[in-house]
Amino acid sequence: MLIRPKEGILDPQGQAVERALPALGFEGVESVHVGRLVELEVADPSRLGEMCEQLLANPLVEDYEVELEDGAAR
Amino acid sequence: MLIRPKEGILDPQGQAVERALPALGFEGVESVHVGRLVELEVADPSRLGEMCEQLLANPLVEDYEVELEDGAAR
Repeated sequence: MLIRPKEGILDPQGQAVERALPALGFEGVESVHVGRLVELEVADPSRLGEMCEQLLANPLVEDYEVELEDGAAR
Repeated sequence: MLIRPKEGILDPQGQAVERALPALGFEGVESVHVGRLVELEVADPSRLGEMCEQLLANPLVEDYEVELEDGAAR
């Protein structure tokens, strides 16, 4: 699951990165956003949205996106 | 960029999620890993690896993966 700050919500980590990069010699970087990546294995992916709503993301200030990878092995 | 704890490195956030999910009624979830998602716009993507090494990831304990999206339209 990819969890991102909602548009228009303050993203202090993103701002910090955006300010720090030029000091390290990386110019021309814009619109930095820092979110979270949650990876897990689950037999029934139908409840991943619920997991995000209830635990993984804060739906007031974050959006989430579920990406499925078919890892039937294991 | 996707930044993940290296295999074999302690992932306390992942462990916390894995323990919390059954308490919320989500069973059958395994191998939870929590990492970071950094999204940004940059004219020259050739230095994204360097940015990860120097600022965004801790290469001692984290792996990173760069994914490019062609958003020329911005």
